[in-house]
Amino acid sequence: MKIAVIGVGYWGPNLVRNLLANKSVSEVYCFDINPKRLRFIKHQFPSVSVVDNYKDILKNSKISGICIATPTSTHFPLAKMAIEYDKHILVEKPFTVSISEAETLIELARRREVSLLVDHIFMYNGAVRKIKEIIDSGEIGDILYFDAVRINLGLFQHDVNVLYDLATHDISIMLYLLKKNPKALSAIGVGHYNTIEDIAYLTMFFDDSCIAHFHVNWLAPVKVRRILIGGSKKMILYDDMETVEKIKIYDKGVEIKSKEGIYKTLIEYRTGDMYAPKFDTTEPLFLVIDEFIDSIKNGAEPLSNGRIGLEIVKILNAAQKSLKNNGCMVALK
Amino acid sequence: MKIAVIGVGYWGPNLVRNLLANKSVSEVYCFDINPKRLRFIKHQFPSVSVVDNYKDILKNSKISGICIATPTSTHFPLAKMAIEYDKHILVEKPFTVSISEAETLIELARRREVSLLVDHIFMYNGAVRKIKEIIDSGEIGDILYFDAVRINLGLFQHDVNVLYDLATHDISIMLYLLKKNPKALSAIGVGHYNTIEDIAYLTMFFDDSCIAHFHVNWLAPVKVRRILIGGSKKMILYDDMETVEKIKIYDKGVEIKSKEGIYKTLIEYRTGDMYAPKFDTTEPLFLVIDEFIDSIKNGAEPLSNGRIGLEIVKILNAAQKSLKNNGCMVALK
Amino acid sequence: MKIAVIGVGYWGPNLVRNLLANKSVSEVYCFDINPKRLRFIKHQFPSVSVVDNYKDILKNSKISGICIATPTSTHFPLAKMAIEYDKHILVEKPFTVSISEAETLIELARRREVSLLVDHIFMYNGAVRKIKEIIDSGEIGDILYFDAVRINLGLFQHDVNVLYDLATHDISIMLYLLKKNPKALSAIGVGHYNTIEDIAYLTMFFDDSCIAHFHVNWLAPVKVRRILIGGSKKMILYDDMETVEKIKIYDKGVEIKSKEGIYKTLIEYRTGDMYAPKFDTTEPLFLVIDEFIDSIKNGAEPLSNGRIGLEIVKILNAAQKSLKNNGCMVALK
Amino acid sequence: MKIAVIGVGYWGPNLVRNLLANKSVSEVYCFDINPKRLRFIKHQFPSVSVVDNYKDILKNSKISGICIATPTSTHFPLAKMAIEYDKHILVEKPFTVSISEAETLIELARRREVSLLVDHIFMYNGAVRKIKEIIDSGEIGDILYFDAVRINLGLFQHDVNVLYDLATHDISIMLYLLKKNPKALSAIGVGHYNTIEDIAYLTMFFDDSCIAHFHVNWLAPVKVRRILIGGSKKMILYDDMETVEKIKIYDKGVEIKSKEGIYKTLIEYRTGDMYAPKFDTTEPLFLVIDEFIDSIKNGAEPLSNGRIGLEIVKILNAAQKSLKNNGCMVALK
Repeated sequence: MKIAVIGVGYWGPNLVRNLLANKSVSEVYCFDINPKRLRFIKHQFPSVSVVDNYKDILKNSKISGICIATPTSTHFPLAKMAIEYDKHILVEKPFTVSISEAETLIELARRREVSLLVDHIFMYNGAVRKIKEIIDSGEIGDILYFDAVRINLGLFQHDVNVLYDLATHDISIMLYLLKKNPKALSAIGVGHYNTIEDIAYLTMFFDDSCIAHFHVNWLAPVKVRRILIGGSKKMILYDDMETVEKIKIYDKGVEIKSKEGIYKTLIEYRTGDMYAPKFDTTEPLFLVIDEFIDSIKNGAEPLSNGRIGLEIVKILNAAQKSLKNNGCMVALK
Repeated sequence: MKIAVIGVGYWGPNLVRNLLANKSVSEVYCFDINPKRLRFIKHQFPSVSVVDNYKDILKNSKISGICIATPTSTHFPLAKMAIEYDKHILVEKPFTVSISEAETLIELARRREVSLLVDHIFMYNGAVRKIKEIIDSGEIGDILYFDAVRINLGLFQHDVNVLYDLATHDISIMLYLLKKNPKALSAIGVGHYNTIEDIAYLTMFFDDSCIAHFHVNWLAPVKVRRILIGGSKKMILYDDMETVEKIKIYDKGVEIKSKEGIYKTLIEYRTGDMYAPKFDTTEPLFLVIDEFIDSIKNGAEPLSNGRIGLEIVKILNAAQKSLKNNGCMVALK
Repeated sequence: MKIAVIGVGYWGPNLVRNLLANKSVSEVYCFDINPKRLRFIKHQFPSVSVVDNYKDILKNSKISGICIATPTSTHFPLAKMAIEYDKHILVEKPFTVSISEAETLIELARRREVSLLVDHIFMYNGAVRKIKEIIDSGEIGDILYFDAVRINLGLFQHDVNVLYDLATHDISIMLYLLKKNPKALSAIGVGHYNTIEDIAYLTMFFDDSCIAHFHVNWLAPVKVRRILIGGSKKMILYDDMETVEKIKIYDKGVEIKSKEGIYKTLIEYRTGDMYAPKFDTTEPLFLVIDEFIDSIKNGAEPLSNGRIGLEIVKILNAAQKSLKNNGCMVALK
Repeated sequence: MKIAVIGVGYWGPNLVRNLLANKSVSEVYCFDINPKRLRFIKHQFPSVSVVDNYKDILKNSKISGICIATPTSTHFPLAKMAIEYDKHILVEKPFTVSISEAETLIELARRREVSLLVDHIFMYNGAVRKIKEIIDSGEIGDILYFDAVRINLGLFQHDVNVLYDLATHDISIMLYLLKKNPKALSAIGVGHYNTIEDIAYLTMFFDDSCIAHFHVNWLAPVKVRRILIGGSKKMILYDDMETVEKIKIYDKGVEIKSKEGIYKTLIEYRTGDMYAPKFDTTEPLFLVIDEFIDSIKNGAEPLSNGRIGLEIVKILNAAQKSLKNNGCMVALK
């Protein structure tokens, strides 16, 4: 199978490397509007075929699928053309800028019967999957809150703000792990160097008292990737900066002993052992590529499909609306 | 000098211990409505004099000052009586529930010429004072953001929510460190076990693009006390859970190289050394008591005076208003 | 019951505090050759009775037991006198300087029928006891090695070296946890400021291939208290500097798949979950005092008795011999 | 320039990758006795030329240099042949098993005028070089001790013990950083699964009171790479497992205030700021390859030359002798 990668900037080379490592892929084509990046990729991976323009890829009927790793604002036109040429597509996150773009691509892919995978890579991450397994087993109980922090210095994006860049990951993790969907959200952010927000805080609300909060920041001196999930039975800490013990399950909680009027709630704390489960450490992108290739071969729907991509675009759009209106509450349908 | 402590529950014994350690204090009186706690304090500190009712303390003209460490909602009546009996007062944080209560006490203390100290203890903390020194020196540059996280399991309060309980500390630190005052705020929170919020997120806005955010949580499996302060020149991480290196100053930042239209801002990152300054480790409460005694002796205004206490009550009241209105923006005057 | 504390320098005040907290203790007497320390203890604990000379304590027939917290070299004469006056004794670690001193005290205590407790405090530590419970259950398998690091800056002792000061703790932990006794040892150390070693490394050998190693250092910029215990089935990390997760049990190990000649051993690694068990956090010294009081009342042999104290003195003496002979191997009987 | 890599097991692929990234290298040849590994390397790096037997490489006059990444015991015969064919050589650490082998290779390389680089990679590590810079500046003062810990689970070697495998790195770092050479050593170790030691402790002595200690272990549940360097003025902690702050310089020390007899030394502790200097993060192996290529081009002596390799082999041989004699002291000439 022959696959092309469009955009070999920061992330594209990882796609190329994992495509080359896939047994079913016989040839990898690369295109980038920046000739420097094309020379770089050719030097790094001498076996790839670099191409001068996108059309050559589209017209090459031997190429089955196209991976799009360009700036977010260009996803839609590039993906649309690809589908129109009957190529299966893998689109980097976030899927598109607008909701209608996402809907158009989903409908088009359905009609043309091509695979559509949006690369929400954390859905393929061994630690996240282990957490899903634990939550699904009921061990944690009901989810009381989801709190994500993803901060570091840079990389400033030019066409999307820090929510689109960083929160996208945590939103995809939340949707994957929780069995309930947010009903409304509120977002606040500021841009210190131009109109693009470099710090943002996003809060989501559910039908019950569950709350989700996301802190993303391009201006932090330290790199933090931490998710806290509070359950009615146990609590989870997922710290992606830990080298080994990334997941910790705390046998901790609160129990109501009696409840007689507002000032009389008697609360007891429970503290037991902590454990750090072993999890699969296969490179997530290897699994993403594997599933993409598989979906091309067998027509199976990928886990991270267009519908998930669209759902996240809807949330990001609502967040953007709230952001521009001083954090007003925006309903999610 | 003779000093009384009203309320010897969770915090009161610390006041007693530090009063006993103060050279100018010759006798310490204690009162609590719970006789068990009075027996406990007498066992722990056999030299204190326990008293059966508050009136005996008020009427005892040899007692110069009263420290009030009771639930927040009782601060006002107890402090008012104390001042009316011409006692100098130290009130635990937060000062009062309502703004008018705080204003009444300030005015009363002024008229009766007694000292009024609100125990915002972090203003006396060696690490916080070292950070103030560094910010005041100009080393950090302009403050771009202030992000505080104060989470742990428990202790649920019965009369105030997690913002009043935990965020109070971080708000006092922020007001102490920053030379600018917030102009508006937005707060969001949920209560999982009763109507009192156990998780809350508070955001504050300033005249410039500075933003402050506070995450407080009584339901977290891990204890976190972390403040990030981003400056235009350097950045600070204050991690109070570190045993030694609580303050880290990062020579990190962002520089704008050119700015031609929204998509063309060229940003460069700067990364240099980090250093962890040594700071004074005197117990903050010892310094609080020392200043209280000093203010009684010399009439000097304490650093953490009624005005600071009032300012924080105003912020907490505005936060409460926002909390009850889905996080709507509330202006601060 | 009335108890006396001899020596209220660095450690003595902790004994006083825990004696005062014990329900069976009605009065605490203190003596120190330094009048400053006596004044300090009286100020800190106004209810204690300070005494001008040791004889008054010895002759006071109402005093049942004496706790000796003086420099190591003075333990023997002070303890001997105490026993001769029929006082029950608690001696700080290490028990004595020489083996014969320890033997004399044990024999004397036996004849006079008084309790003798050597304060090897880690035998009363909740984390250490939890580790013992786990090892005793067989979960860890056979012990392959015991590696202890106890380093920090200071406090330099004047009469004993860093092995006597710091390694004593780890040796007591090792003897308590392992069911086997070392057969020989080797010790190496240097003194940078005088003849007293401030850095030392001690290795112990057993009948099987188990090895124990101790690194102690008064000149380290960081405080480390870490014990690694390798078992044939699982491995333990005990990090006393962690605030909460002090014990970690790793389901890790090595399995031999085949063994055909020296170069052909096929080894496989096994890695599973890690867990951090909850443990009792009662202050160890409270339990030590409780057991001492109990042994006076009921004549029960304390866990940390003279025999343990003697065993450790034998090891320290052998280590000293090795230290003075360039780390030569010294047999332990 | 054309370069060959002999042995593409665990480490060889890293050599190949860095050779391919070097601008002066036009072709990379690979040989391994295991055809599976040759197929693996060809799949991973399609541009390399794989070769069926070593002779083809030796006889190919277009190949200038050979990198030898085979088991330690084979270094000598393979390197000898390479030099006899006038190839420049890069040999993985440790250089050889015996001292005479190392001496033979050095002499042969000198006569044949070929470059000889022993890959002691930490001499090219940015953090280690930054530490050297700091020590050389005099900031640390005299070195009082050097304490290295390098432990983890596996990888068991088949032909050399844990000292040859792991301590080699720390010995090379010590020789590089300290301006003084050890005069004697003592080593102790045990093998739990066969006669090859999987845990070892090595101590080295100098003309002054400086002491160096190395703890290496293949049976540890956690990965530790930590070096403590105590200086008379400041102290260094180098923790290679930290993601960013690998080097910490502590302004800590001990000062002698008076010295009147053994029991009267008055010692004071000094504690100031800590700082974590920024350092070059270029991949060390890239610099090693660069220097090897450079030495071929210009005949310049590499930093990590045969003499360093020999010195380390001498230390390892002495350690082996001590290990087999219960840790007896062995002099180093």
